[in-house]
Amino acid sequence: MAAMAPREEWDEEEEQRQALREPLLGHLHSINLRRHARNSTSQIAIIGSNPCPIESLDYEMIESDLFNQDWRSRGRAAILQYIFLKWTLCFLIGILAAAVGFFNNLAIENLAGIKFVAFYELMLANRYWLAFGMFAASNLALLMFASTITSYISTAAGGSGIPEVKAYLNGVDAPDIFSLRTLVVKILGCITAVSSSLHVGKAGPMVHTGACIAALLGHGGSRRFRMTCKWLRYFKNDRDRRDLVTCGAAAGVAAAFRAPVGGVLFALESLSSWWRSALIWRAFFTTAVVAVVLQTLINICNSGKCGLFGKGGLIMFDVTSDSITYHLTDLPPVILLGVIGGILGSLYNFLMLKVLRIYSLVNEKGCAHKLLLSATVSIFTSCCLFGLPWLASCRPCPKKDCPSIGHSGNYKQFRCPPMHYNDLAGLIFNTNDDAIRNLFTTGTNDELHRTSILLFFVASYILGILSYGVVAPFGLFVPIILTGAIYGRFVGMLTGSSSNLDHGLFAILGSASFLGGTMRMTVSMCVIILELTNNLLLLPLVMLVLLISKTVADSFNANIYDQILKLKGLPYLEGHAEPYMRQLTVSDVVTGPLQTFNGVEKVGNIVHALRTTGHHGFPVIDDPPFSSSPVLFGLILRAHLLVLLKKKDFLPTCSRSGADASKMFMANDFAKRSSGKHDRVEDIELTAEEMEMFIDLHPFTNTSPYTVVETMSLAKALILFREVGLRHLLVVPKSSPRAPVVGILTRHDFMPEHILGLHPYLMRSRWKRLRISVPALKKYFRGFLMWACT
Amino acid sequence: MAAMAPREEWDEEEEQRQALREPLLGHLHSINLRRHARNSTSQIAIIGSNPCPIESLDYEMIESDLFNQDWRSRGRAAILQYIFLKWTLCFLIGILAAAVGFFNNLAIENLAGIKFVAFYELMLANRYWLAFGMFAASNLALLMFASTITSYISTAAGGSGIPEVKAYLNGVDAPDIFSLRTLVVKILGCITAVSSSLHVGKAGPMVHTGACIAALLGHGGSRRFRMTCKWLRYFKNDRDRRDLVTCGAAAGVAAAFRAPVGGVLFALESLSSWWRSALIWRAFFTTAVVAVVLQTLINICNSGKCGLFGKGGLIMFDVTSDSITYHLTDLPPVILLGVIGGILGSLYNFLMLKVLRIYSLVNEKGCAHKLLLSATVSIFTSCCLFGLPWLASCRPCPKKDCPSIGHSGNYKQFRCPPMHYNDLAGLIFNTNDDAIRNLFTTGTNDELHRTSILLFFVASYILGILSYGVVAPFGLFVPIILTGAIYGRFVGMLTGSSSNLDHGLFAILGSASFLGGTMRMTVSMCVIILELTNNLLLLPLVMLVLLISKTVADSFNANIYDQILKLKGLPYLEGHAEPYMRQLTVSDVVTGPLQTFNGVEKVGNIVHALRTTGHHGFPVIDDPPFSSSPVLFGLILRAHLLVLLKKKDFLPTCSRSGADASKMFMANDFAKRSSGKHDRVEDIELTAEEMEMFIDLHPFTNTSPYTVVETMSLAKALILFREVGLRHLLVVPKSSPRAPVVGILTRHDFMPEHILGLHPYLMRSRWKRLRISVPALKKYFRGFLMWACT
Repeated sequence: MAAMAPREEWDEEEEQRQALREPLLGHLHSINLRRHARNSTSQIAIIGSNPCPIESLDYEMIESDLFNQDWRSRGRAAILQYIFLKWTLCFLIGILAAAVGFFNNLAIENLAGIKFVAFYELMLANRYWLAFGMFAASNLALLMFASTITSYISTAAGGSGIPEVKAYLNGVDAPDIFSLRTLVVKILGCITAVSSSLHVGKAGPMVHTGACIAALLGHGGSRRFRMTCKWLRYFKNDRDRRDLVTCGAAAGVAAAFRAPVGGVLFALESLSSWWRSALIWRAFFTTAVVAVVLQTLINICNSGKCGLFGKGGLIMFDVTSDSITYHLTDLPPVILLGVIGGILGSLYNFLMLKVLRIYSLVNEKGCAHKLLLSATVSIFTSCCLFGLPWLASCRPCPKKDCPSIGHSGNYKQFRCPPMHYNDLAGLIFNTNDDAIRNLFTTGTNDELHRTSILLFFVASYILGILSYGVVAPFGLFVPIILTGAIYGRFVGMLTGSSSNLDHGLFAILGSASFLGGTMRMTVSMCVIILELTNNLLLLPLVMLVLLISKTVADSFNANIYDQILKLKGLPYLEGHAEPYMRQLTVSDVVTGPLQTFNGVEKVGNIVHALRTTGHHGFPVIDDPPFSSSPVLFGLILRAHLLVLLKKKDFLPTCSRSGADASKMFMANDFAKRSSGKHDRVEDIELTAEEMEMFIDLHPFTNTSPYTVVETMSLAKALILFREVGLRHLLVVPKSSPRAPVVGILTRHDFMPEHILGLHPYLMRSRWKRLRISVPALKKYFRGFLMWACT
Repeated sequence: MAAMAPREEWDEEEEQRQALREPLLGHLHSINLRRHARNSTSQIAIIGSNPCPIESLDYEMIESDLFNQDWRSRGRAAILQYIFLKWTLCFLIGILAAAVGFFNNLAIENLAGIKFVAFYELMLANRYWLAFGMFAASNLALLMFASTITSYISTAAGGSGIPEVKAYLNGVDAPDIFSLRTLVVKILGCITAVSSSLHVGKAGPMVHTGACIAALLGHGGSRRFRMTCKWLRYFKNDRDRRDLVTCGAAAGVAAAFRAPVGGVLFALESLSSWWRSALIWRAFFTTAVVAVVLQTLINICNSGKCGLFGKGGLIMFDVTSDSITYHLTDLPPVILLGVIGGILGSLYNFLMLKVLRIYSLVNEKGCAHKLLLSATVSIFTSCCLFGLPWLASCRPCPKKDCPSIGHSGNYKQFRCPPMHYNDLAGLIFNTNDDAIRNLFTTGTNDELHRTSILLFFVASYILGILSYGVVAPFGLFVPIILTGAIYGRFVGMLTGSSSNLDHGLFAILGSASFLGGTMRMTVSMCVIILELTNNLLLLPLVMLVLLISKTVADSFNANIYDQILKLKGLPYLEGHAEPYMRQLTVSDVVTGPLQTFNGVEKVGNIVHALRTTGHHGFPVIDDPPFSSSPVLFGLILRAHLLVLLKKKDFLPTCSRSGADASKMFMANDFAKRSSGKHDRVEDIELTAEEMEMFIDLHPFTNTSPYTVVETMSLAKALILFREVGLRHLLVVPKSSPRAPVVGILTRHDFMPEHILGLHPYLMRSRWKRLRISVPALKKYFRGFLMWACT
């Protein structure tokens, strides 16, 4: 067999045998060299639209003398306060998220509505060039406003914000992502950008908006505006903030799609990295509040006080076809729809990523370049949208109230004679929500022409890819749903009479397949689509299409949000261990000189360590005067050291402090500051005398950090690190006569770039992710045959 | 303030101050005494209907030399096989679960249908006593069959099985819960018990059935029937089995309610203790298969080949009211419905538990007593059901095809003159599914009389409580939904004209409130109700009712499944730490003499340890000949020691073995046996000579067990133990000159009974769970006022 195999394959087999023969720690000496290397993975990531420093969050329970004392002093009343506040905050998050979602919608419908009405009036007067000028200019102005406030006021508000929220919930913090400034820019920017007829959506930013509202409520408003409240002290830690932000994100989705159950599932399936049953129930409460508030607001609007805001409710597409029946003969086109949707979806991801790379090169050059790019994309979009309907032919009106002049009718006259309509104009010169509603409507099989649909599909596909990289706050959902709906209609038309399914249903299934192909969510997307279309009978078909398209697309590339996360350089910690992590031990990846402190440490040493390293945790070792042999006492955090240095309550000699720490400090002094904010060692001024004094670190040290033995495999350590949600994991030696701690693992040490950088031979190993490539497929097939035959 | 407080309160405050003054490890000397106490929590729990020994599952990654070698030898083909098998198994689980669910339904509809038709014929012939005799006798025979097979063939099949599956997914294994025998008894018993007109349901057992199918497929059928397959070796570990069982349970729920999304959510919210995004998607695939198979089978039945099986599909209650509108005025009755539903639900739980306690006293006495109890309950139920309609008055028929004679009509003539019907008989002499469908139907506000409804509600409430403890396989869902539906209708009738809501909708909301009050699930129940009723417009109201009833009921007691879990003595590990766990350190609860082995250990010592203790993990310590000082080498499992003893490949002297362990053993030799099965040390026979020989444990020892330092708080250790899913957690000393390991924590050490047994003073502490009691309420209120005023 081996003799017949081609040369390269033989090589690989030989390599595998070599690997098997090699003893487990054969490359031990090279590891010890590596111990002096540094972790070179970047601590900078693109947040919104600009690079920012990032940090991990502290989810670990700190158990120092001080903290334990504080916990003990909490009585029943305090626990009751805490519970009461938790639910009140969720209630407020729900109300505010619903209000913002409704306001966004109202503003967009009105802004875009005014624009479209003015445009039609000019078109009806046959003043085409003026109409185009008005259309392009207003689009440009709206988008430039969005891009300008994003670039100059809050760069963190750019994009959909979903990757940032996902990273936050995974334990990655970045400055400014949850500030009041970001919230305002996100809301205003999203309204103007979506109104500018750019091919973007408003659902993604709602996730960030909801999370932002939750985070702001949790730390009681912005500190700069002196709005922090004392009674929110229980929420001054990253664990409670994480829960609030999860509820906020769920509320955002619920408000965007008016899908309360879908919102909870979206947060659960796609955003959250840790989840508890209690949190499901709190998130569900939040989204229930959203649903009730939205319903009330919509009832108010139904009385006609909301301007051009449509009566169809928030984007909810009632597809109440009385008799949705499907048979076995409908399955082949539906399966085909899923397969092609998966391929198109993964291609969309691929192209989007290429475009984002190119755009980021432009955006890096400064604000002027960003604005120029926005302007270019806006003008290109305007030209496309205005030009396309000229290619479609005029069709005679099928019913009475046609062509419509209002803002949301399906039959636009455009350049046609009376009693005729231009089908493409009806799709284009509407808000995306209305276009989707038109496409989802059943019983309109003959209203759209095949060529128009194809043209619009191509335009929508390309514009969607080109638009997302522009610096402004908007999302991906709506363009993907729209593109999918057109694609579905087109498949429905091709199927023709061989299927009984209505083209409106094909459009829904098309949206599902496209969402499955790009976003790769299953349960949450399924529920959101059902809640959007308000039709449960579609469930089996939607499930089928989602599963097929996800499976197909997964064999080509990862989902769009994970790809954007990676592109932005956010150190997202995956839940599963890569196969090569089983081959490495913890000590294979620990890097950098370890900086430790003594139990009673000189102030100068602490300041030096804080200034020269970027570490956030330092092991505290008790040396002989305080113990018989070097003992690991615990781990102290940079933030806590800074509090101690600020207090300047130093000891003159190297001895244990007799004073009771709980009298000198309130536990609140050590409360975690709000997201992205932290003190800097440079801001603390100390005299030379003070630098020679000592601090007793014992009362402030976390005495029970989690530890792993150095021979543990990286995969096993990752499980602990990820499941418990750690920031620092101490590595202890196997045998005792050595130093009590040999290194610290952080999030960055588990990043593939770091590991593969240290161990380049793994790159060539067979443990890479399974992705389809032609030679691999052949090999799989042969392997499968061999296995089946034996 | 203190002077004015009553005596007992002052005491408590004083105690709190005392606790604060007390140093953290003040009771250290008493701990050291406790180190020699044993963990006295029971290793026996009630599984199904009989006490059985239980065991924990091994989710930890074992990293011994042998295992690592095996992992390394897995090539791409093996990984591909694994992935392929995983999905194939899910596919098979879906098909089988759907088929079983459908078969169950068909059998019940036909068995019960034949019984009811015969009963009506006798009633029409005015032979009342004969009709009653036939009814009672057939009910008794059916139930006795179910009870007999459960008592004599598989006691593990008794009850709904949901507590057992929930405990399994939490890491508690019991013999026989997933055997072929149990599966068969579960299916047959459920069919006969539900057909016997007992007030029980068939949904709960479907969860156990689905899980059982999944577990059996995972280990390739029963070993006794020589059906294990070699290519399933990848699934011979508890992690993969857990995933399969989760998918199976989801498929079971999906098949029971025809609710694919609800099934996934039920498994996620109520059953599973660990969850990953990848698993959501696999479970979703499984339930999608269930949905498609069910749809196909129902289509076949719609052609009328399934006997008395109704055409309405599996229990799906299409509530397609065209115009469900609700206004602010409908809110007060709906809120009231939720509040009272919560109270009734928690009362239901309370009474059910009392009854279960009494029944278990009877059941303990042996099979004859069990059968006697079943017979009593069956006869009582028959009398109740036959007697009740005599209390209802006859009502004139509202439409033409009334009274109906078939098996599922709403209008039963019972003892009435022609063209009249007895409303209560229509509800009682039907399967529960049909009764629920009748109650959920809209537009039938006047068909049922208020007195009948009230009578039936009381009967249903009491019968539901009395039935569940009977030894046979059945569930709680359907009786709770039915009781809730009647309760909802009754509230609807009381509301009268002040609400526009249809009584059918009130019935749905009543079911929701009762489910919320007893089961306390939110998202999954909400989705299941929506999928059952096929009406999304109800969503906001259902959410509201569920939230209210859960909140109200949660302030009285825990959900019914958790209470049954506790009653059964299953050591379920909660995800959150109780407040008192923050006060204790790990060393406060470690008990029992620690049994360790040397790296090279005498066979006799191992056998002695295995025989005299029940431990499943033993630390392996390397002593001076093999290392310079005592070093913790790792942890070895009882199961692996038994394999070594069976192999009898011993060393003559106390020295490291030079042979390559991977040549002597296949990794498969150490594969985990299927659920509930394990070898026993008593079955291994060794000569006196062999007992004096040695085994080198090094290659078989897990070299990287998770460890915690003895001063870590119990709460923090619990997070690690629970999140990572451990069976053994080693406790290491803070300072090195002591023995390298001071104890092992297992699941039982985290049980409240054990902890509170060791530290009885915690019982009186303020850290107990918050539950409403009148004095506590007063205190909360005062505390709240004080807090609000400061």
